[in-house]
Amino acid sequence: MKLARKDILGIKELSVEEINLILDTAESFVEISTREIKKVPTLRGKTVVNLFFEASTRTRTSFEIAGKRLSADTINISASTSSVVKGETLLDTARNIEAMSPDVIVIRHRAAGAPHMLARMVKQSIINAGDGAHEHPTQALLDMMTIRMKKGKIAGLKVAIVGDIAHSRVARSNIYGLTKMGARVAVAGPATMLPRQVGEMGVDVYRRLEEAIEGADIIMMLRVQTEREHQNIFPSLREYARYFCLNGKNIKLAREDVLVMHPGPINRGVEIASDIADSTSSVILEQVANGVAVRMAILYLLTGGES
Amino acid sequence: MKLARKDILGIKELSVEEINLILDTAESFVEISTREIKKVPTLRGKTVVNLFFEASTRTRTSFEIAGKRLSADTINISASTSSVVKGETLLDTARNIEAMSPDVIVIRHRAAGAPHMLARMVKQSIINAGDGAHEHPTQALLDMMTIRMKKGKIAGLKVAIVGDIAHSRVARSNIYGLTKMGARVAVAGPATMLPRQVGEMGVDVYRRLEEAIEGADIIMMLRVQTEREHQNIFPSLREYARYFCLNGKNIKLAREDVLVMHPGPINRGVEIASDIADSTSSVILEQVANGVAVRMAILYLLTGGES
Amino acid sequence: MKLARKDILGIKELSVEEINLILDTAESFVEISTREIKKVPTLRGKTVVNLFFEASTRTRTSFEIAGKRLSADTINISASTSSVVKGETLLDTARNIEAMSPDVIVIRHRAAGAPHMLARMVKQSIINAGDGAHEHPTQALLDMMTIRMKKGKIAGLKVAIVGDIAHSRVARSNIYGLTKMGARVAVAGPATMLPRQVGEMGVDVYRRLEEAIEGADIIMMLRVQTEREHQNIFPSLREYARYFCLNGKNIKLAREDVLVMHPGPINRGVEIASDIADSTSSVILEQVANGVAVRMAILYLLTGGES
Repeated sequence: MKLARKDILGIKELSVEEINLILDTAESFVEISTREIKKVPTLRGKTVVNLFFEASTRTRTSFEIAGKRLSADTINISASTSSVVKGETLLDTARNIEAMSPDVIVIRHRAAGAPHMLARMVKQSIINAGDGAHEHPTQALLDMMTIRMKKGKIAGLKVAIVGDIAHSRVARSNIYGLTKMGARVAVAGPATMLPRQVGEMGVDVYRRLEEAIEGADIIMMLRVQTEREHQNIFPSLREYARYFCLNGKNIKLAREDVLVMHPGPINRGVEIASDIADSTSSVILEQVANGVAVRMAILYLLTGGES
Repeated sequence: MKLARKDILGIKELSVEEINLILDTAESFVEISTREIKKVPTLRGKTVVNLFFEASTRTRTSFEIAGKRLSADTINISASTSSVVKGETLLDTARNIEAMSPDVIVIRHRAAGAPHMLARMVKQSIINAGDGAHEHPTQALLDMMTIRMKKGKIAGLKVAIVGDIAHSRVARSNIYGLTKMGARVAVAGPATMLPRQVGEMGVDVYRRLEEAIEGADIIMMLRVQTEREHQNIFPSLREYARYFCLNGKNIKLAREDVLVMHPGPINRGVEIASDIADSTSSVILEQVANGVAVRMAILYLLTGGES
Repeated sequence: MKLARKDILGIKELSVEEINLILDTAESFVEISTREIKKVPTLRGKTVVNLFFEASTRTRTSFEIAGKRLSADTINISASTSSVVKGETLLDTARNIEAMSPDVIVIRHRAAGAPHMLARMVKQSIINAGDGAHEHPTQALLDMMTIRMKKGKIAGLKVAIVGDIAHSRVARSNIYGLTKMGARVAVAGPATMLPRQVGEMGVDVYRRLEEAIEGADIIMMLRVQTEREHQNIFPSLREYARYFCLNGKNIKLAREDVLVMHPGPINRGVEIASDIADSTSSVILEQVANGVAVRMAILYLLTGGES
């Protein structure tokens, strides 16, 4: 089976079949990273450009490793060293990269919709690695892959997502994906962090963490953007942690076999207690490992690979 | 035929035969970037160091892609992360890199002549990727390649170069190359942007854009260095655009089949109107594509390749 | 022979046999960098992550070139672009990298002991590329390799180390290594730059450069950290140079066949006179060349290679 799609821009537009195709392919790629020689020649002679307008360790590194394990040539471009500082428009930057004949452009940008605009304008495959508060599809795919591998299914599970729902592209992509795959999604966060229309996305909305995680199979804790803390969304980190930190006490409201997830980087003691992050319930590092496999799968499928 | 030369430092010292050798080789490399597997093993086991003391997207990326498509190992060193911040001299930095046995060092530096000094002091091949307001030979070569491919020749054409002639290494390298190849070159720009001795370079000098582009086969618009704008070279960007922006009206003075070129990144509405940059006359993106081929050719020829 | 060790954290814990194994392997790798095709497939499919929390040209580049010449995939992560800016702990950063299944993590960090902590917590091999004022083992190994190659031995030689002994990881690693290998080590520096316990490390301590270098076979000059100059360790660079600069006059106190070494980047005219740095006694650039070979050897041995 092939992916009949030029780009991966968001989970919203993916069908259940497409999501399953990506997850199946990703699962088959997991094994490569466990080999003595962690490399296959599949994408030899292909060029993958990582165009990052926001700082990132894990996502950029994950895409770079994914590309290299498939033998692609990877090129990193970060905003600080780019022509962006010379006032070039995003589209002109992208068209210039396009003219150098890469096969895939991975883009992270602070503006929602930036990858979608590029996808319409350049002929190469575009992968959205995070656009503003909009979507982060590869994160949601690796989250769904992790759930599927650990629980054997997604449909019917109760997934709680807790934190700054309104400003989180991780939450948004996961809500699209998880509801599509048949999970029940409950979200919780301070009132200022809950978007007005979130109920329309097919999720249950709560003001208290405890209500959302009750009976949950999966708890996804969102990162508090400590760097944006003082924009009066909530009084203080301490105040936030008091009500919305997942800890050894409130986690007992969830199912005993609950999986704790986090997109990272984690703020220990803010949105997640240290012992919970390091507990056997936590699959945070499995998420990271699966991220490489999901990105390998997407690079493979977008360049014409078959599952 | 081989290139009997250790370095590519400027167009000034290249012969017509050498320029033709590079352009012929580059044209033969264009096809590689259109293949399913965009990679040849020609430079396997060679090391290319990109040593950039000034920010750059397109030139650094172009060299990196060129190296990788030839299977070279590419290493990027940028000023901000380098020992330069620790007060090392440029020569010591270069000698240290030399000691690690690269095959080619690509250097961009704000000081005119920096690549020439290195070329005398280190045994590896040096490629000048832009030195101050002096030369940018690979840019001029890709420009000449683009002209030759689109017009079938360079000799006899009228080429207008418009903008900050005095501070542009792109202008200087193109003036050397185009006059050498038999083109007639006309330059125009505000009085403060025209070097006193430009007439001695064998070009016609005009104060008005309209005079320079009249009957032109090729118009090269130079980038306004908006980041240096307020150094009283001209009153304002708006003032500049009023007199020196190539637009749908003044372009009619050129030949109907005129090619519009720009080294990028472009400032839409400053030196070039948006619709002209995107028109069928514009070959700006062909320039970028040819840049990869020209750099592949130079890396190939400097490491002993034959045409 | 194999290296029975997961990590290279410091010279302190290496045995004489282990040091000799690394130096022997490194010497056998020197030749690769002189080949027409400077690449062997030894580490194909292995992933080496360079995790640098401090700026570095030569060390990062040296590791990157070493990895590439062995056909490893190399990934660079620098602090400025990393999640560190988002407040993640070092250990969480490392665990995330670990989850992506690299084979070796090379780390430079301002905190002494940071690599040791990681080595205990992650399963991959850790190479210390400099931790605070503590150790810089690959530098000492390349220094010992250079001495052994030039002098045929280390035992019995007199080595003078001059400069800021107290704050130099290069000095500390070399003192551990050279005394272990049987050299006599003399150190000299301003009183504020000599650690109290240095005598306990088995070296002779002098206040004057002249005393330390008298009859020396090897002089290692340490870099003055000009960027930290005004932290009242000594009055001024000029004052420092007056007493502790190796020059054409005081070098006559050493043996005629003395080797002058420096870890770089050098401050000409501060700790070393320009003509001495460039003299035939200087092996500063051999040190850089040997650095690539030493790092190749360590990458090779840590990933299971046999000598």
